[in-house]
Amino acid sequence: MKKELTYAVIGTGALGGYYGGMLARAGKDVRFQVRTGYETVKKEGLFVESCDGDFRLPRIACCQKTSEMEPVDVVLVCLKTTANDLLPEMLKPLLKKDTLVVLVQNGLLFEEELSAALPGTAVAGASAFICSFKVAPGHIRHCDFGHISMALLKNTPAAGGILETVCADLSASGVRAEREPDLAALRWRKLVWNIPYNGMTVVLETSTDKIMRDPATRSLAKDLMLETLLGASACGVSIGEDFVEKMLAYTDTMVPYAPSMKLDYDAKRPMEIKGIYSNPLKAALEKGTDLPKIRTLERLLYFKQNEYLKES
Amino acid sequence: MKKELTYAVIGTGALGGYYGGMLARAGKDVRFQVRTGYETVKKEGLFVESCDGDFRLPRIACCQKTSEMEPVDVVLVCLKTTANDLLPEMLKPLLKKDTLVVLVQNGLLFEEELSAALPGTAVAGASAFICSFKVAPGHIRHCDFGHISMALLKNTPAAGGILETVCADLSASGVRAEREPDLAALRWRKLVWNIPYNGMTVVLETSTDKIMRDPATRSLAKDLMLETLLGASACGVSIGEDFVEKMLAYTDTMVPYAPSMKLDYDAKRPMEIKGIYSNPLKAALEKGTDLPKIRTLERLLYFKQNEYLKES
Repeated sequence: MKKELTYAVIGTGALGGYYGGMLARAGKDVRFQVRTGYETVKKEGLFVESCDGDFRLPRIACCQKTSEMEPVDVVLVCLKTTANDLLPEMLKPLLKKDTLVVLVQNGLLFEEELSAALPGTAVAGASAFICSFKVAPGHIRHCDFGHISMALLKNTPAAGGILETVCADLSASGVRAEREPDLAALRWRKLVWNIPYNGMTVVLETSTDKIMRDPATRSLAKDLMLETLLGASACGVSIGEDFVEKMLAYTDTMVPYAPSMKLDYDAKRPMEIKGIYSNPLKAALEKGTDLPKIRTLERLLYFKQNEYLKES
Repeated sequence: MKKELTYAVIGTGALGGYYGGMLARAGKDVRFQVRTGYETVKKEGLFVESCDGDFRLPRIACCQKTSEMEPVDVVLVCLKTTANDLLPEMLKPLLKKDTLVVLVQNGLLFEEELSAALPGTAVAGASAFICSFKVAPGHIRHCDFGHISMALLKNTPAAGGILETVCADLSASGVRAEREPDLAALRWRKLVWNIPYNGMTVVLETSTDKIMRDPATRSLAKDLMLETLLGASACGVSIGEDFVEKMLAYTDTMVPYAPSMKLDYDAKRPMEIKGIYSNPLKAALEKGTDLPKIRTLERLLYFKQNEYLKES
């Protein structure tokens, strides 16, 4: 019989709390790193209020720092990418030969950056299609969707069949999880939604439904999606224009929604501008492709962020 | 001896109050149309607080409506372009053979639109380089600069030497006024400043100095200027890149400033999006040139405006 995988979840928030919680509920070996509110979570465990049914895990294996944790087979990194500078150091105590690190994050090029910082480590990326947020330490609210797509970084050290097993474990835990062949394609497809809505909801201090209702911003959302397709194409990822129509229609069906960047902005936290804007712009520009509308939004976002980060 | 020109000033605000006031102070025949606060201005006249020296005109010739006024030689239109739909009707009572209408306004294509609405009328445009605003009816504050450049619309009916005389009258009144050979060049040059700063101060709810201080928006300001040069070039107007550097340096020297569009936004008045953004975009696009960064700003501005105009 095959050995069960051991998991570490870094960051027990909207994503880590949900996906890690689902795996733990299903009996998988999951250890959580909980930075904020560690004492509470240690004592009270995890509570996931979910549109698919609430559940409570009264006791979970958790530590405040990764240096207190053991090496594992799989690390699910569920931190904001704004903390990625610290990631190599945080990961080191968790790594053994063949550990697979999965970045359950938004944005482009972070897998490449991590792989460069930790040569020899197997790296994958995952895009979560989910509406969820952290209500309080150990208390996650999952409002809508929930599926997750994963892909190995190109030329990553052979991670064997681990990623397949991760997908199987998630599926067995009640999460729709699928493995994709191409990480760049996975990342760019997610950007088609993230680029227009994250930035516009922040710059205009509004929500997705209002953007969709106003003809000016509805057309700009579409333009930004089409520019994202250009960037993807420059990087060798082909996405059809029908995908743009699908994303617009999908957004129309959503409840009025504040994307994660808008939540960060409202809370005056650093925003994921690098992964969602600067890195895609850089990747496209390296292939000679300019994305001027996305660049405009990126510039405006840095101004918005500098306004409050300089204050603090 | 040459007959003195008669003037009508439509709109006695930041521009009409200042330029009309300067002409009237110098003894020129100027009649003012005062829409808001007419009774006050009729009784108390005009007060110009100016960085070049304050002055008061206790009595000015004024009417509330142009239909109460006589035809004149020169009409200085000093209204916001957001009221330009009403302009042909407003102008009719003031026109005789050879009346010259000068649009002292911001933005592109309004002279062409007026000429199409009033065929046979001589039309010119003027760009005012001035920091001024209306404090109250008949009370204008002039903070900085003040020169004005004028040019005839191409193929406008022969306005004889009237425009020369207008410039001479203004110069004799203490205003630095010059005639330029090319209206399109005059308009596009002014847009090089107006396009970045009007839009960005509104979208980011900030002022010019903060835009210049942040490297992200400083570079975006430059990019928007360079895109404006592309649009100008498509329309046959050549502006050198040194002009961009000059405008950036000029803005660095300015006191923290809220451009007119920002004042309109703060007061929840309609903004001059059409003249400063949509018409230049249209003119460039007709020549096959796309201006994506300017388009992005235009879309964001319409959203901002729709938020409060829909409310009212």
